[in-house]
Amino acid sequence: MAQNRHSLKDVAKRADVSVATVSRYLNGFLELPDGTRGRIDRAVADLDYRPNPHARRLSLGRSDTFALIIPDIANPFFSRLAAAMEACAAEHGKMVTLHATMNRSDREIAALENAFQNLVDGLVFITNHMPPPEVAERINRFARAIVLDEDVKDARAPRVLCDNEQGGFLAGQVLYQAGHRKVAYIGGREDLFSTSARLEGLRRGMQGIAPLRSYVDDHAAASGRELAQRFLKDCDGETALFVGSDELTVGVLEVFRAQGVRVPDDISLVSFDNVRSLHLFAPAITAVEQPVDTMGRRAIEMLLDGEWDDPDFLKTRELLPVRLIERQSVGAPNPITRKA
Amino acid sequence: MAQNRHSLKDVAKRADVSVATVSRYLNGFLELPDGTRGRIDRAVADLDYRPNPHARRLSLGRSDTFALIIPDIANPFFSRLAAAMEACAAEHGKMVTLHATMNRSDREIAALENAFQNLVDGLVFITNHMPPPEVAERINRFARAIVLDEDVKDARAPRVLCDNEQGGFLAGQVLYQAGHRKVAYIGGREDLFSTSARLEGLRRGMQGIAPLRSYVDDHAAASGRELAQRFLKDCDGETALFVGSDELTVGVLEVFRAQGVRVPDDISLVSFDNVRSLHLFAPAITAVEQPVDTMGRRAIEMLLDGEWDDPDFLKTRELLPVRLIERQSVGAPNPITRKA
Repeated sequence: MAQNRHSLKDVAKRADVSVATVSRYLNGFLELPDGTRGRIDRAVADLDYRPNPHARRLSLGRSDTFALIIPDIANPFFSRLAAAMEACAAEHGKMVTLHATMNRSDREIAALENAFQNLVDGLVFITNHMPPPEVAERINRFARAIVLDEDVKDARAPRVLCDNEQGGFLAGQVLYQAGHRKVAYIGGREDLFSTSARLEGLRRGMQGIAPLRSYVDDHAAASGRELAQRFLKDCDGETALFVGSDELTVGVLEVFRAQGVRVPDDISLVSFDNVRSLHLFAPAITAVEQPVDTMGRRAIEMLLDGEWDDPDFLKTRELLPVRLIERQSVGAPNPITRKA
Repeated sequence: MAQNRHSLKDVAKRADVSVATVSRYLNGFLELPDGTRGRIDRAVADLDYRPNPHARRLSLGRSDTFALIIPDIANPFFSRLAAAMEACAAEHGKMVTLHATMNRSDREIAALENAFQNLVDGLVFITNHMPPPEVAERINRFARAIVLDEDVKDARAPRVLCDNEQGGFLAGQVLYQAGHRKVAYIGGREDLFSTSARLEGLRRGMQGIAPLRSYVDDHAAASGRELAQRFLKDCDGETALFVGSDELTVGVLEVFRAQGVRVPDDISLVSFDNVRSLHLFAPAITAVEQPVDTMGRRAIEMLLDGEWDDPDFLKTRELLPVRLIERQSVGAPNPITRKA
């Protein structure tokens, strides 16, 4: 870096004190008589001295940085989460580094190693798959780590999650009340805690009726397209879909539109997230809304203010409430039989 | 941080060499006989020694980190840009820090100071307003900085921009060819380089006809709502709108829908960005598409591989091509007069 800076030595020389005195004074570890303090302050100002942050971190063991490990920042759910976390961290004078993993275990492990090597003050870990034990082991090395959005087996860290079971329930309830009895699920993989919670809730909302079929993959529009095509091939009397994310919903709607399947005339649909402009879609899409901004803020607040010395704090499990936004994508059942 | 680590001293002691030897060997500055090398490598492995990154940065003057200063990471245009930059940086073993400014000069200055203090290896600066001279002064302190998306007066740094003039031209052309002669503009502020380029292009596409009125503000859905309300009050024969971002388009469509203004029956509309799911909107929205992934990658590639010793390189101005995606929001003119 072509940055000319004065060193602590220059400040010490100009103020006519030792380097150790300047260092301890500037780090707040030393009380000094007014005269000496004045000389150091003037020398700092005259030389435009800025402490080298790496040296400072080395001596204080602190980086003022939080690491965010996140599947995909281009997905609006995660970009909203990241924005909420960055805003909250910035209010407290902290920076965030961003690591996108695309749900790949190798990238998750590399990002965890990197964040650990860099002595971050805290970690927020988000995944959308069931990672191997090596991931939880590495999360557990951090003095302060939060597991956000999706649970991670064996991680010793507080969780901040949305109430996935209640979300599934609200979706099931609105479909059941509209008369639907044969429902399919398109969403995240079945080994995810969020998936089992949502499916449990869905069954509760449907008065005990489980979905006929589940189609699962990553939360990406491309996956939504593929799963929707498989659903249309298999479809045997299903009248409604519960879709686990807005990203998947985008893919599903693209396929439905291309194949002339009308929502809700042919198939009713409830999405999950409500982070895309679903109110402007044709038709406007009914969705379970996640409290995404609150989730991001809570994760950072807990990193800052949590009772990290209390072993019970690591078992914290905050379930933030969801709500149903009713729009035009749920109608009366109209069985279509599309078996080839 | 509660992280127990072995120091360089421990490695040196175990390998029976001096600390300086271990340090210079591990940093690649020293050739050693096989025996000595083997002893150090074994000591590193036995002790699970990890170099302290802050000490390493202190000695190498390098942080392997790029700073991204960006108006709003929740806006899908910027989150797509950030995702492309993070992916490209990660491929080269670099991290990114994220600083959201909400286009506030004080936050831009604070983020620039912070990144400078942290000795980042490079800066990507994005703003959506005309910042005061203090911002360009601070950008100019960096050895490697890229100005992305929107020009910044007096910044001595390469620019990576989309071809805004051509974007305006394509919008003007499609509106003119559909028969529109009275057009209004809703978009970014008029002191932005992007705004003047788009308005110039619009006039060229409209065969020399300038928009009747311009409504300008930040690229946010809330601004779109406010500007659309003002437009509907003033509207005096305009038959089409050119809207400067998908965020503004969302706000405009919300107001149009609430007030029963139909697109394209009452007003035709062309958006700019194509980062939201405009193809699923009712109606599907015609838009000028920015090459957002390419823009993000180019910024990082230039930080990594640019000819930074060549003063002419700082004058680089890459204009990346845009294209028009035609959908259903442009129709024949149908003058509505809504003057109160």
